[in-house]
Amino acid sequence: MKTQVVIIGGGPSGLLLSQLLNRAGIETLVLERASRDRVLSRIRAGVLEAGTVQMLREAGVAERMEREGIPHAGCYLTDDDLMVRINFEGLTGSPVMVYGQTEVTVDLYAAQDAMGTTIVHDVEDVVINDADSTAPFVEYTSAGKRIRVDCDYVAGCDGFHGVSRPTIPAEKRREFERVYPFGWLGVLSRTPPAHHELIYANSSNGFALASMRNENLSRYYVQVSLTDKVENWSDERFWDKLQSCLPSEVANTMITGPSIEKSIAPLRSYVNEPLRWGRLFLVGDATHIVPPTGAKGLNLAVSDVFYLHQALIDALKNHDETGIDGYSERALKRIWKAMRFSWQMTSMLHQFEGEDSFAAQMRKATLAHLAQSETARRELAENYIGLPF
Amino acid sequence: MKTQVVIIGGGPSGLLLSQLLNRAGIETLVLERASRDRVLSRIRAGVLEAGTVQMLREAGVAERMEREGIPHAGCYLTDDDLMVRINFEGLTGSPVMVYGQTEVTVDLYAAQDAMGTTIVHDVEDVVINDADSTAPFVEYTSAGKRIRVDCDYVAGCDGFHGVSRPTIPAEKRREFERVYPFGWLGVLSRTPPAHHELIYANSSNGFALASMRNENLSRYYVQVSLTDKVENWSDERFWDKLQSCLPSEVANTMITGPSIEKSIAPLRSYVNEPLRWGRLFLVGDATHIVPPTGAKGLNLAVSDVFYLHQALIDALKNHDETGIDGYSERALKRIWKAMRFSWQMTSMLHQFEGEDSFAAQMRKATLAHLAQSETARRELAENYIGLPF
Repeated sequence: MKTQVVIIGGGPSGLLLSQLLNRAGIETLVLERASRDRVLSRIRAGVLEAGTVQMLREAGVAERMEREGIPHAGCYLTDDDLMVRINFEGLTGSPVMVYGQTEVTVDLYAAQDAMGTTIVHDVEDVVINDADSTAPFVEYTSAGKRIRVDCDYVAGCDGFHGVSRPTIPAEKRREFERVYPFGWLGVLSRTPPAHHELIYANSSNGFALASMRNENLSRYYVQVSLTDKVENWSDERFWDKLQSCLPSEVANTMITGPSIEKSIAPLRSYVNEPLRWGRLFLVGDATHIVPPTGAKGLNLAVSDVFYLHQALIDALKNHDETGIDGYSERALKRIWKAMRFSWQMTSMLHQFEGEDSFAAQMRKATLAHLAQSETARRELAENYIGLPF
Repeated sequence: MKTQVVIIGGGPSGLLLSQLLNRAGIETLVLERASRDRVLSRIRAGVLEAGTVQMLREAGVAERMEREGIPHAGCYLTDDDLMVRINFEGLTGSPVMVYGQTEVTVDLYAAQDAMGTTIVHDVEDVVINDADSTAPFVEYTSAGKRIRVDCDYVAGCDGFHGVSRPTIPAEKRREFERVYPFGWLGVLSRTPPAHHELIYANSSNGFALASMRNENLSRYYVQVSLTDKVENWSDERFWDKLQSCLPSEVANTMITGPSIEKSIAPLRSYVNEPLRWGRLFLVGDATHIVPPTGAKGLNLAVSDVFYLHQALIDALKNHDETGIDGYSERALKRIWKAMRFSWQMTSMLHQFEGEDSFAAQMRKATLAHLAQSETARRELAENYIGLPF
């Protein structure tokens, strides 16, 4: 078997890359370890930067998003009862779009199916061979059969636990990591959102986030200790905790209900450098992880795809390798900025176990400063809506 | 003896308060533990915010500063060889003034002498009595004689180790503190400054600051461990270290010479709340300490004086106590913002012992972001030149 670009991973970044390459007349093969249903059952982020929205438009998969997505002109950061509005639209001219990652994936599958691209699910034992040569090939097992695909390039869109990154020899790369001493307990509930905009809450009781998927589907988070377990959190305990973290005017009027999903995720910052080894290119979570504070995960994967799809088109259609030679450096520049913003948002809004009393005062002072300084709000808004590609 | 306001401490904040009160026709008595020569031998900060400059003008002590001070339209933050200029004037419309704290103190003494105010030096065993009554009095020993002064108000401008703050019962106040795991080794040398503007250097070899007092007097700092001793630092070792932290284009052209002063100071953030107990008011270092990164120490004392002198004039001349009732809260608002900025500058530019590799990347990313984002530079500039009183 032969194709131009093998894409490891059929999540949103792999599918978007496949979509953009196929529209440019480049043949791809997408290999995904899980079933389609399994991919679509993952509950992930729901805030799209303006640049991500633009990319989805260019990929021809924006129709339903334009109809069902909810543009948000701003969000709130709070400190107990102090609510600071960050007016994205007023400060930067651009809103963000609230539209679940799962929905983006559904739309991408539909578009790929319509184009007749090949997405193989339930593949096992993927091996990337000779990535540092001019003739790489990928092997995998599908329905009990071992298959070899020769290709020009391989894109590793297979997430943190995928095979792509470890394919690059350890001595050829560097890793940077920060593990935060807390996790997020997330709850999905079929209730109207507590507020029509997102609320990132700093409070004396810890961090909370009130977000939503649509008018009758809410997504909430509270900060928990890393050793905590979902079993310890009844719905009642969760709502009590959440309400103790949100401003009282929001907590007192919000509607609660049974949870339909409940899970704990750790928070970390991670970057692997570089994003290229020969003809293998890493994308998204396969090479960097941000804590969810700031909603950069999917958006950052999309900006990697933005740089990489252009680079691969140049290389394959125009025999111009400038783009692929510069991909890692170009993508990393933006990645480190988003890492910085996500780290800063995380540090600014969470309680750290064992912290001194000064730390809480710094969070309060930061929120008070945001409340008073338009420049501080603009700095936050520019980063939140996404720095230019 | 009787006076209207007893001012404990004859450093710049006590003298400035005395100056402003006397110009408004209020009688003061300044009590200073050290001799005048000793006060003038203290080497301190040298960057005045626009608001501080304005206050010195209003106090009638700006003449020599206008002549000899050096207005700085900007400064540099660097990351190894990357130099990011923060254009104060372009971004905020306002420069800062480089003029040593010692010079400010000289000018204040001269102005106080010209007005014939009373400054008593070498006082011992100062005790503030009945501060929470309507008839406070201060006792002190001068030239072997115990003296009692009755007064309307007491201003504690006597620094961190003074008697004023401990006069307030511990249960009536709260303290917040952050001790940083490093100090600054400072050197004064009679050499032309390495650069005509200040350079705050982040580097792989740690933090350094290149600053100056005048055209032929330079003030440099490098970050050292808290356990380090001045004796370990020959001039040669200091210059080597400094040059390894500064951008090479600066390091390679700078002129070094023998040090005329060398000392190590720890860095800490400290706030005592509130700033008032009955008729006693705390000012400057007596109630808050900032790390020197960001040059806020003297400037913050001056903004306390700004609020307090107005409040005392209102109380004594117009029998209006709104100002003194609001003094602590008003001053603290600005204090916490300057604490936040100083803490952020300190965290952004120093190596922390035992830090992970991610921490250094965050400093690099912050500098890279500053280099690219005018909003980020404006946010820094607005804080550096001083938030409005």
